[in-house]
Amino acid sequence: MNGAQAVVATLRGCGVEVYFANPGTSEMHLVAALDEEPTARAVPCLFEGVATGAADGYGRMSGRPAATLLHLGPGLGNGLANLHNARRAATPLVNLVGDHATHHKQLDAPLESDIDALAGTVSGWVHRCRDTASAGVDTAAAVAAAMTSPGQVATLILPADISWSPGASPAPPRPSARPSAVPDDAMTAIIAALRSAAPTAFLLGGTATRAPALRAAARIAAATGARLLCETFPARLERGAGLPALERLGYLPEGARAQLQGLQHLVLVGAHIPVSFFAYPGQPGLLAPGDCHVHTLAGPGDDVAGALAHLTDLVPHTAPATTSAARPQPPTGELTGEAVAAAVGALLPEGAIVVDEANTSGLWLPAATAGAPQHDWLSLTGGAIGQGLPLAAGAAIACPGRPVVCLEADGSAMYTLQALWTIAREELDVTTVVYANQSYSVLEMEYERLAQVADSGHRRRASRDLLDLSRPNLNFAELAQGMGVPTSRATTAEEFTLQLAKALAEPGPHLIEARVPPLFTLQRTP
Amino acid sequence: MNGAQAVVATLRGCGVEVYFANPGTSEMHLVAALDEEPTARAVPCLFEGVATGAADGYGRMSGRPAATLLHLGPGLGNGLANLHNARRAATPLVNLVGDHATHHKQLDAPLESDIDALAGTVSGWVHRCRDTASAGVDTAAAVAAAMTSPGQVATLILPADISWSPGASPAPPRPSARPSAVPDDAMTAIIAALRSAAPTAFLLGGTATRAPALRAAARIAAATGARLLCETFPARLERGAGLPALERLGYLPEGARAQLQGLQHLVLVGAHIPVSFFAYPGQPGLLAPGDCHVHTLAGPGDDVAGALAHLTDLVPHTAPATTSAARPQPPTGELTGEAVAAAVGALLPEGAIVVDEANTSGLWLPAATAGAPQHDWLSLTGGAIGQGLPLAAGAAIACPGRPVVCLEADGSAMYTLQALWTIAREELDVTTVVYANQSYSVLEMEYERLAQVADSGHRRRASRDLLDLSRPNLNFAELAQGMGVPTSRATTAEEFTLQLAKALAEPGPHLIEARVPPLFTLQRTP
Repeated sequence: MNGAQAVVATLRGCGVEVYFANPGTSEMHLVAALDEEPTARAVPCLFEGVATGAADGYGRMSGRPAATLLHLGPGLGNGLANLHNARRAATPLVNLVGDHATHHKQLDAPLESDIDALAGTVSGWVHRCRDTASAGVDTAAAVAAAMTSPGQVATLILPADISWSPGASPAPPRPSARPSAVPDDAMTAIIAALRSAAPTAFLLGGTATRAPALRAAARIAAATGARLLCETFPARLERGAGLPALERLGYLPEGARAQLQGLQHLVLVGAHIPVSFFAYPGQPGLLAPGDCHVHTLAGPGDDVAGALAHLTDLVPHTAPATTSAARPQPPTGELTGEAVAAAVGALLPEGAIVVDEANTSGLWLPAATAGAPQHDWLSLTGGAIGQGLPLAAGAAIACPGRPVVCLEADGSAMYTLQALWTIAREELDVTTVVYANQSYSVLEMEYERLAQVADSGHRRRASRDLLDLSRPNLNFAELAQGMGVPTSRATTAEEFTLQLAKALAEPGPHLIEARVPPLFTLQRTP
Repeated sequence: MNGAQAVVATLRGCGVEVYFANPGTSEMHLVAALDEEPTARAVPCLFEGVATGAADGYGRMSGRPAATLLHLGPGLGNGLANLHNARRAATPLVNLVGDHATHHKQLDAPLESDIDALAGTVSGWVHRCRDTASAGVDTAAAVAAAMTSPGQVATLILPADISWSPGASPAPPRPSARPSAVPDDAMTAIIAALRSAAPTAFLLGGTATRAPALRAAARIAAATGARLLCETFPARLERGAGLPALERLGYLPEGARAQLQGLQHLVLVGAHIPVSFFAYPGQPGLLAPGDCHVHTLAGPGDDVAGALAHLTDLVPHTAPATTSAARPQPPTGELTGEAVAAAVGALLPEGAIVVDEANTSGLWLPAATAGAPQHDWLSLTGGAIGQGLPLAAGAAIACPGRPVVCLEADGSAMYTLQALWTIAREELDVTTVVYANQSYSVLEMEYERLAQVADSGHRRRASRDLLDLSRPNLNFAELAQGMGVPTSRATTAEEFTLQLAKALAEPGPHLIEARVPPLFTLQRTP
């Protein structure tokens, strides 16, 4: 068999059978190999950022890597932003990047570029396949790397001649490194903190935001009086009625610092130490108080479940507090971000997967959906907008029986709107709500924050041009219909609620354009 | 003034006044500085690939750099593919990439990534600004680097605190390095080749495809009997009635090798040595015959005009052959790529800028437009699709008085379709034709070429899924209207010709969806 066939056969043996693909000439032998693989699912994407974002969504929900097919450096480049998000989400993911034939690289053909350098910026593991005989074992190593706890992006660069040459064979799966246990001295310090009655909080992140870990953490919190916090942008948060409630850290540093104020101990469980998303003049980047002791019960790649189980054994057995079932009333009147949140909270189906790239318009969503039936919440982990629609596509493919609700800001939606076509092609059960507020509202807010510190009598023509998405308005109903997704437009809360109920009742793709006012609008001088 | 203000003031002093921008929080001080700059034009883009592609189009047509505003690593990543094309086009371009504040980088905040590594893959010059006092001089250095002959991508990374801190001042423009003259021994060998009467051709590329160089080269060709060839994908080719005709090298290596067969001397003028776009099993990557002597009259960055002038002085004064005015008859009947080409040839206005990302559907365009009134032809220099629409936007902004005709393949159009909104917002005179053949036809061709060498009884389910753009069809009329561009759809040659005439007659944006059959379609087993 040729190298491409060995790659595909090895991936099948490792349980990787979904390919989010935007191939080109240098990947054509991989496409031919997929043609011979009846169990492989090749999902076409009209842009590589859709492929990588979908692979992120798939990996977050399935716990297993999907593969991407990316075309040389530019194809990888187009997929980088969502690979950045996947890296921050610690998603297992295998990129297959085709390259020029080994003997062709020295010729500096038009598509030649430094793929290795690009891949290094988003991958925990990068390898360039050196010969056809290694194609199988390199592929197995890529999957093992992707599955290394807590999960990471693994990029395998495949020169075209290695793909097309005979002499390859599939390799068996390789074991991944096991997660580390908690060191005894860390555990001793945490126990001491919990017994001290000093203000203590657990900050959950990574795999600690999944139901079993949440329940264990909630039990410890109930037994010790510690608070339960969640990182600002969890990769996958299980929540809803019957699950423990978590307080998510705020996005703006002022808010997050207020949440952490007075804490003497902060215990990280699968989470990184909390830092400000951006720096601001005169504000510290670390969010915990200066005198707060930060402990690590389990780092993102450690044995989070084992660490929590160990700690649970050391505290009195106490029933955890859980969220009561509660839904908001369906909203009426003006359609706002708050009304959309109420409608989502009122209607969210059991087992839904919520993809949240609502940005400023989504401010009310966590509260409005807290008591809804159990669901997963996927958020924008790396801050690279354009994640939502691709993530929804991948999540839907990972979980065919579950409805996906994708809550999208208009500015972010326009980054990777091509995902709607994949959603239509694959007939995925994704209901997309676009908050059409016609502005980069979060940037309007940041601009205002800046103006407070640098008053210089701005004329504001450039900022008006750059932060405003009207003139002309984006018509998402037309845009989505142009890619085969049935659409509607809501301008009142009642319309929106009806349209959302209808979309959720019918399987398959729908898009609702929700005309909402922006949360922040600059008061501009004329 | 703060660092951001010094950057903007320095750029103005260097003649850089157009910004293609998709800013974020870390670039907000640059936006505020632009607010104070009445001559700056800030052009909003809904995706960074639009910003970088537009800056490429602007630079190709104006000969001066535009600036981009890109948001950290993911923003640069989104713009990489079109920066790759700009690198191959040798376009002067200044990227301004905002980064986290210097003291914030160590915290590994969600948007932290290796911007320097990314930038290095597409930039001829990369610099990270180290302190506010250097912001002005670093900016002047970036412009000088961008203008280094023949032009290159210069990336300046600006940490947020350097932008917001006071203590900066604008710097004066810096001279760029001068292009090199031709070494005497190279000239001597070329003269000997031309006098030998052995089969000789000039291969023109880079700035040698502009009218003055073309005329000089044509004069030499007329005097010596040498052939005039042009690189396959010129960044900017001036052509049409009254200008010398050139034979462009073909895309497929078999065709290009046939064009070069029998040559004993190939003289490069601003061009790179010709190589196959992709490697194929058993085929050489170098296109010129093995016994052909390759000479360099002028490399891409050398003094092309001076070298041609020098050589012109050494050959007998001979009038160059030029193309006669000729237009095809308006087409009738079925709408095909050939019919579109005939209509474009029949109607192309004098001084038009043609942006060609028509791919397989564009096969007939060069012949059909050869005798049209003089125009510029911009092609896909780096092979990273998704260039056409952004390039058209930038070219239109560089040349407000000239009509832009953007000829787009549907698969490529979907990469950066967001450019249509910028075209609508800026009311640019861009007529876009989308060849809606509902397939990645070039990949269908490559797949067929592969099947000829590797017959393995493909089932072809995966390739059908990955190379076919129907199910559902993309409706470009709806997609463009959704971004505010007036549209029409043509299904016959007569309809298309009428719609094109109407679009060209009216200033402002238009999009015509041309329903054409694919040039290559797989004969698939059911």
